[in-house]
Amino acid sequence: MKVVTFGEIMLRLAPFGYLRFLQEPSFQATFGGGEANVAVSLSNFGIDTKFVTKLPNNDIALGCVRELNKYGVDTSSISFGGDRMGIYFLEKGASMRGSKVIYDRKYSSISMAKKEDFDWDTILNDCTLFHFTGITPAISDSLAEITLEAVKTAKKKGITVSCDLNYRKKLWSKEKANKVMSSLMPYVDICIANEEDAQDVFNISANADLNAGKLDRGRYESVAKQLVDMFNFKKVAITLRESISANDNNWGAMIYSNGVANYSKTYSIRIVDRVGGGDSFGAGLIYSLLNNYSDKDAIEFAAAASALKQTIEGDFSLISVNEVESLVSGNIGGRVQR
Amino acid sequence: MKVVTFGEIMLRLAPFGYLRFLQEPSFQATFGGGEANVAVSLSNFGIDTKFVTKLPNNDIALGCVRELNKYGVDTSSISFGGDRMGIYFLEKGASMRGSKVIYDRKYSSISMAKKEDFDWDTILNDCTLFHFTGITPAISDSLAEITLEAVKTAKKKGITVSCDLNYRKKLWSKEKANKVMSSLMPYVDICIANEEDAQDVFNISANADLNAGKLDRGRYESVAKQLVDMFNFKKVAITLRESISANDNNWGAMIYSNGVANYSKTYSIRIVDRVGGGDSFGAGLIYSLLNNYSDKDAIEFAAAASALKQTIEGDFSLISVNEVESLVSGNIGGRVQR
Amino acid sequence: MKVVTFGEIMLRLAPFGYLRFLQEPSFQATFGGGEANVAVSLSNFGIDTKFVTKLPNNDIALGCVRELNKYGVDTSSISFGGDRMGIYFLEKGASMRGSKVIYDRKYSSISMAKKEDFDWDTILNDCTLFHFTGITPAISDSLAEITLEAVKTAKKKGITVSCDLNYRKKLWSKEKANKVMSSLMPYVDICIANEEDAQDVFNISANADLNAGKLDRGRYESVAKQLVDMFNFKKVAITLRESISANDNNWGAMIYSNGVANYSKTYSIRIVDRVGGGDSFGAGLIYSLLNNYSDKDAIEFAAAASALKQTIEGDFSLISVNEVESLVSGNIGGRVQR
Amino acid sequence: MKVVTFGEIMLRLAPFGYLRFLQEPSFQATFGGGEANVAVSLSNFGIDTKFVTKLPNNDIALGCVRELNKYGVDTSSISFGGDRMGIYFLEKGASMRGSKVIYDRKYSSISMAKKEDFDWDTILNDCTLFHFTGITPAISDSLAEITLEAVKTAKKKGITVSCDLNYRKKLWSKEKANKVMSSLMPYVDICIANEEDAQDVFNISANADLNAGKLDRGRYESVAKQLVDMFNFKKVAITLRESISANDNNWGAMIYSNGVANYSKTYSIRIVDRVGGGDSFGAGLIYSLLNNYSDKDAIEFAAAASALKQTIEGDFSLISVNEVESLVSGNIGGRVQR
Amino acid sequence: MKVVTFGEIMLRLAPFGYLRFLQEPSFQATFGGGEANVAVSLSNFGIDTKFVTKLPNNDIALGCVRELNKYGVDTSSISFGGDRMGIYFLEKGASMRGSKVIYDRKYSSISMAKKEDFDWDTILNDCTLFHFTGITPAISDSLAEITLEAVKTAKKKGITVSCDLNYRKKLWSKEKANKVMSSLMPYVDICIANEEDAQDVFNISANADLNAGKLDRGRYESVAKQLVDMFNFKKVAITLRESISANDNNWGAMIYSNGVANYSKTYSIRIVDRVGGGDSFGAGLIYSLLNNYSDKDAIEFAAAASALKQTIEGDFSLISVNEVESLVSGNIGGRVQR
Amino acid sequence: MKVVTFGEIMLRLAPFGYLRFLQEPSFQATFGGGEANVAVSLSNFGIDTKFVTKLPNNDIALGCVRELNKYGVDTSSISFGGDRMGIYFLEKGASMRGSKVIYDRKYSSISMAKKEDFDWDTILNDCTLFHFTGITPAISDSLAEITLEAVKTAKKKGITVSCDLNYRKKLWSKEKANKVMSSLMPYVDICIANEEDAQDVFNISANADLNAGKLDRGRYESVAKQLVDMFNFKKVAITLRESISANDNNWGAMIYSNGVANYSKTYSIRIVDRVGGGDSFGAGLIYSLLNNYSDKDAIEFAAAASALKQTIEGDFSLISVNEVESLVSGNIGGRVQR
Repeated sequence: MKVVTFGEIMLRLAPFGYLRFLQEPSFQATFGGGEANVAVSLSNFGIDTKFVTKLPNNDIALGCVRELNKYGVDTSSISFGGDRMGIYFLEKGASMRGSKVIYDRKYSSISMAKKEDFDWDTILNDCTLFHFTGITPAISDSLAEITLEAVKTAKKKGITVSCDLNYRKKLWSKEKANKVMSSLMPYVDICIANEEDAQDVFNISANADLNAGKLDRGRYESVAKQLVDMFNFKKVAITLRESISANDNNWGAMIYSNGVANYSKTYSIRIVDRVGGGDSFGAGLIYSLLNNYSDKDAIEFAAAASALKQTIEGDFSLISVNEVESLVSGNIGGRVQR
Repeated sequence: MKVVTFGEIMLRLAPFGYLRFLQEPSFQATFGGGEANVAVSLSNFGIDTKFVTKLPNNDIALGCVRELNKYGVDTSSISFGGDRMGIYFLEKGASMRGSKVIYDRKYSSISMAKKEDFDWDTILNDCTLFHFTGITPAISDSLAEITLEAVKTAKKKGITVSCDLNYRKKLWSKEKANKVMSSLMPYVDICIANEEDAQDVFNISANADLNAGKLDRGRYESVAKQLVDMFNFKKVAITLRESISANDNNWGAMIYSNGVANYSKTYSIRIVDRVGGGDSFGAGLIYSLLNNYSDKDAIEFAAAASALKQTIEGDFSLISVNEVESLVSGNIGGRVQR
Repeated sequence: MKVVTFGEIMLRLAPFGYLRFLQEPSFQATFGGGEANVAVSLSNFGIDTKFVTKLPNNDIALGCVRELNKYGVDTSSISFGGDRMGIYFLEKGASMRGSKVIYDRKYSSISMAKKEDFDWDTILNDCTLFHFTGITPAISDSLAEITLEAVKTAKKKGITVSCDLNYRKKLWSKEKANKVMSSLMPYVDICIANEEDAQDVFNISANADLNAGKLDRGRYESVAKQLVDMFNFKKVAITLRESISANDNNWGAMIYSNGVANYSKTYSIRIVDRVGGGDSFGAGLIYSLLNNYSDKDAIEFAAAASALKQTIEGDFSLISVNEVESLVSGNIGGRVQR
Repeated sequence: MKVVTFGEIMLRLAPFGYLRFLQEPSFQATFGGGEANVAVSLSNFGIDTKFVTKLPNNDIALGCVRELNKYGVDTSSISFGGDRMGIYFLEKGASMRGSKVIYDRKYSSISMAKKEDFDWDTILNDCTLFHFTGITPAISDSLAEITLEAVKTAKKKGITVSCDLNYRKKLWSKEKANKVMSSLMPYVDICIANEEDAQDVFNISANADLNAGKLDRGRYESVAKQLVDMFNFKKVAITLRESISANDNNWGAMIYSNGVANYSKTYSIRIVDRVGGGDSFGAGLIYSLLNNYSDKDAIEFAAAASALKQTIEGDFSLISVNEVESLVSGNIGGRVQR
Repeated sequence: MKVVTFGEIMLRLAPFGYLRFLQEPSFQATFGGGEANVAVSLSNFGIDTKFVTKLPNNDIALGCVRELNKYGVDTSSISFGGDRMGIYFLEKGASMRGSKVIYDRKYSSISMAKKEDFDWDTILNDCTLFHFTGITPAISDSLAEITLEAVKTAKKKGITVSCDLNYRKKLWSKEKANKVMSSLMPYVDICIANEEDAQDVFNISANADLNAGKLDRGRYESVAKQLVDMFNFKKVAITLRESISANDNNWGAMIYSNGVANYSKTYSIRIVDRVGGGDSFGAGLIYSLLNNYSDKDAIEFAAAASALKQTIEGDFSLISVNEVESLVSGNIGGRVQR
Repeated sequence: MKVVTFGEIMLRLAPFGYLRFLQEPSFQATFGGGEANVAVSLSNFGIDTKFVTKLPNNDIALGCVRELNKYGVDTSSISFGGDRMGIYFLEKGASMRGSKVIYDRKYSSISMAKKEDFDWDTILNDCTLFHFTGITPAISDSLAEITLEAVKTAKKKGITVSCDLNYRKKLWSKEKANKVMSSLMPYVDICIANEEDAQDVFNISANADLNAGKLDRGRYESVAKQLVDMFNFKKVAITLRESISANDNNWGAMIYSNGVANYSKTYSIRIVDRVGGGDSFGAGLIYSLLNNYSDKDAIEFAAAASALKQTIEGDFSLISVNEVESLVSGNIGGRVQR
């Protein structure tokens, strides 16, 4: 079993604690990006993973590769060249003050990558599952084409393909997202989304009052069903976040397949770092499916894995299978483990 | 439009995080003081501001001036001389353990300032609004006199005067506060207070059980009305803090003018740093009034501005008008802004 | 009045903030251990204390001794020799992710101590109360014997003996704990426990669903009564922790003597560091009893003291009598003390 | 007297201490760039300064503006827009391991600036001296044109123009540098250079073995004379750095005008941060000339100012005129000033 | 053997590393003061010590007392009361930039202490040696009187008295120093000084060019002899510092008694923190004399002890007798001790 | 080409900067050990490496494995089990105060490893060179036997064996070292040593005054020749360290083979961290030999590599081949690389 993920990994620069940008002259410097986060999380679950991207030839990118290696991710298919590595600045919110992201990812090596940078036939050798998110094709036209080539190759090789819709309004318009994503979806088996993504990308209506953070479980099945109807996905998984404040979120998930919806428990999370929450959900889901969990077990595993991620600093989910299983089994009280 | 504020700014020394004093051998070193906080907050709202004080001739004071300049506050009327800069030590509380303040402000340059240190006629040139708090006259007899001269000059020049009562029991007795503040109030147009201040300084009864943190909105109008009756203020604004714990406060405000009270929404704040909350309220109020907001809009703006301040480290409110307006418009969920 | 405590003190290595082990390459390095924590806490209450242990002859142990001296604990009866000091690694949990403890205490100097390392007759000179926990005899057979000698000597000298059961499953089996503790209990006057300890060590049934964190006050009297019936304790004190999450705990306590149970108020604690909570409870109880508090006053003092501890970083409780009394008197709102 | 400087200011990200890039997950985050450094240094000498650049509309750029304001630099002519702010990563060297710079400045707002972003006639109002370095025109063709417009406008207004050659091989070829700089030099009055710059840009030969770090004072007059002969500069100042190791440098300077060379003392510097050393020299020189120092006094002031800079962390020189004068007067022993 | 020292201890606030004041918003917070430094150093040598001062009743002073207790210094004779604790700000110099001290010690509790705060007869019970420095009587007239009472009491009890002249020009004039110190010296047995002190306080000429940092050993005997002739000291010890730069000092010492001078080796010190160097010299000397070392052995011990101090952060000398003896025996190469 | 190294890796706990042990309550936490250091350094040179050891099953060991993976070291042959991971505490020296190491490595998993923990035939598959140091057999009798089995297996497989004598007096006596090492040396091809090691282990006389730090190149050939005569090594490499102070060392090396000695240049190093210097020398030597460098080129490469290591924090050498080659080619001036 080997999972290959493809996308952009960025240097993440975040003020310490709850400081605002440059309130003090220092940044925590880690790395993150949707698909890399999935690879690291899966690797920490014991799955063989490979992350594919393009990085410049410098010591910052070397530091990134080392960080991926640290968690056992295979970096041998990363292409090197181009001008720069994408950066994102993250200011952690508190209470009613939301976290703030400033992207400085334009002109990155990956955004300017060309088809010849990636030999998908070789890259996907021995691959069981290929994962990408809607961010990758959004980065540039060239990347959209490369992604299409990747999923086509995957399909040809009989590899399962999963995709997290992950709509980013700063990267492309809803119209363009719709067009490009619609061309990619036919190759996708497992679709991960939240209600906003479904609306933004595929115009699937849900009428949720997102700022108010209210959840209405009833509606999610309809969204999932519409997605399946559109693209014939084997499974659709939807994450449900109720944002009470930057510190407190309720978090759960639903999986829909063969016309049946299964819901996870809902967790009340005291947030440490919510970035990467969705990615760790994706990883939990992929882990569960690779291990032939039932839908019910899969959604519980994925929801618990991603709830735990949000109690950890950084994009990467540093959680073991044992820890997820303990939470699934009901140990929610956060007691000391001596 | 230019706002001039006058008072003491201190070096603020605080242990990191929730450490007790000297539990580890380091302090965060920032600056703060009621009137300086108002000036910085207003400057961050785009208003021209000048802060007036007296500081010693040394590098610590130079660091303070630079910090004020960093946020665009005009420091050209600061008087230099004297022995020392006031210091306050702040230990951040958690849960039922309250924050602790140790003042080391005695003998500061500003406390020993003399009338000739400030030429109010020049200082208040081009000034639209002059702001001080009850701390300034409390610091020393000399400062009380200087404050009186300042408000008299302001009045002569037709400048609006605002005052935050801010009673500090370590600086003077209730009797003295009553006497001095009563002499200053006739020059004040806008009075900011909380219920305790009104009681401590002007013996206006409210019967609040403050330690229990219960709010009783009904009572606040009576306090405001009594204040107006006493001193003929144009407007009285009262902040309402319900202290559930050092981490969790409920926060709202009321404005009273022409016999009508307007209440803001109440915010449930997960506290990052509550010091300076009242000052950022004053700044929000002044901003609103300078921009001719209705009372209702003004009190919402001021309450939201000060709620946001309490999610930020340090005395200074590093909040933009856009951020306040977004909160006022209902974005309370602390969602990530990408 | 002098209190002597006996046990192991360890170097405590904890990642900063909510970081997982080695997520960043640094540790906070403090010291802690059940009996040392009690000594420090009592010393901060103004009681003369002596802590007895065995430490190696190196600079890490010297640092430990200095830290104890810093808080006024008499270290003159510490025995020196052996190979190493025990270490424990602590990862602070958040939300549903519990804190994690890794012990590296095997082969410590104290675990290999011999009878001749401690001359109890001299050590207990002028001693009013001797305190140990169930951890000490669990560490090694040799320590169990030494502890027995200590309590016998104490008894002979008419010294009050208190013991916190503190069962540690990694140190010994329930069977062994039962056997050894049963031999020590006849010398104990005051027994401190939680419900799990009573069950694990003495097989006293309580049927609590601990992971669910539910409290059932009714049951605790039965546990206490059974303990008294077994060993004829003068008093039994039981702490009641409801673990809602790693960040939020409810905390209270009960004392039982002469057939009567007294319960403290329950505190909702936003946890800063819960390690040492039980030890600070023990210290609060000992303080109260040495000062002849009534059972009701004693349990309130002990519960408040230990609630406050959990708002402080580190094993050691840095709380004054005044602060405990203020909380007992109802100041739970965490308001700023200026 | 007002000095205007024009160029790029970058976010500077540097590992703490002597750590290599990403050896630990954090960066010190300050700002720097040749012309901004000159402005800050002059402002710290009490000169009115304005810094002109183009920055994106985001909080990182806002942090940069605040940092410039902190030191009193006028930022009112900064143009806003474009995609990003330039970044440079700096790893501090030690001993024989040199410091390492990674530029991530491509596609910055300033590099893509257009003529209409800067109204030089207005910007240079009240300006006494205009300063730029060879980095500015190297950044892009557009910037080279804008620089030409700036110096032409300056000339028209009778403003003195100073330029530090500062050749950067990663930004342009020697050939291009020669062509562009040759078109700008006719408008320059004061030229600052080191021997390598003169060689790289204008092919003026010096035969120095720079890696060996040997100085040969004799040769510098010839370089200066050739520069004057080429462009008719009023004054040429050359800095002389002998790099013994990353920690130890010898540092001095020479000024040449009217056919006469004046040399400063040579300082043996234990380096704290050598970046910005040349810029602080430029600032020292400009200060001296604006104050009509003799060439001898000017070169001593500039050399001392820049030697002191290299004992300070960061690009910015936080040195007062008094401190420079004290060093010039011979206080080289680094004694404690109480 | 017990040594009592008397003077002011201050909170020491220093930027981290080589940062200038407030270049970053934090301070290292430790404690220091000439006589406290001597007490701590002696305590670390295994000598019983007591430090006498006056401190305010607050948590900062409590932190100070704890720090003294940490190193075993008896704090039971400290008087409590008054307004504040003295503070000094310390900026560490590098290369030709000297360290900078800003005193904020005016109005401290000790400076306003009164005779009745100290019962010298009791304080000096069991005391073998009483130590003070010229800073103590310089702080205030009242302290000068109290110091006189202390030395008179010491004399009456047959206690040896040592004094480090330590002239501080910011505290008093040379004239006043001369007058007050002349009244105290008749009670002093051992006088510690450097050449500048002798000149400033007693107008003993030495013609040293101190800024140039040149040492001329020949002259020191003459200074010592003049001091002995004036006040009949049993021993005079003079420290010899050659300040090459803020990072590199040469350091040695001389002792003179019975007409004979003994010189120590000279150490080339790479400075970590030179503050407290003289105090650790005093401690080394007192230790040696209490242990009846020969003059030659004493001066070698004292010089080595103080050289080692300057490789340690903070005012306090954390050096053991073994470490000093190893250096005295010739281990100057700084090799790793495994 | 693949290099396998075998030995103990420890958690390294070091105070920040030049602080003494526990002067502040934190440690830098990294990993190190002679053979692991060699593996990491070689991996950073682009060589495939595998590190073999035994570690306990806990998160601290997991952190260690991740750190090795970060630098590309194959950890798949590490055996898991046992009680604990070895720890060493390191206090960095300054000037004449030497660095101090406290070992807490007794009872580590590796020290109690058994033969069956390592299947050398499999482990050494594809291995080109096997490396160990004299520390490994010193740790325990069991490890000495395992090491013997390893080198015998290596020999059988025709693998080159290198050994760094690395005598540690705290681990065994000279007599035991002599006996055990003498049994291992017949299987060793390349011997790395310094003069003290040769003396301590094999009683080869050199008469060096090591504390005085004097080098006498003449003598080293005789030491090398005696080693070759004893054990028929193909090559002997000797490192030459002159310890001027903890901050300043001179460093060079010699290689001896076929009766001919080749010396490297000598480097004057301003030490950042000298721990691991010898290991990085070993790695440099192995790299050179694997790449068939001449003896002269090999010793220059190894000396330069290890000189550079000592300018880097931590045990691990984070140096690339390019950087070493640049230094070898004469770039010793530490100039900025832009």
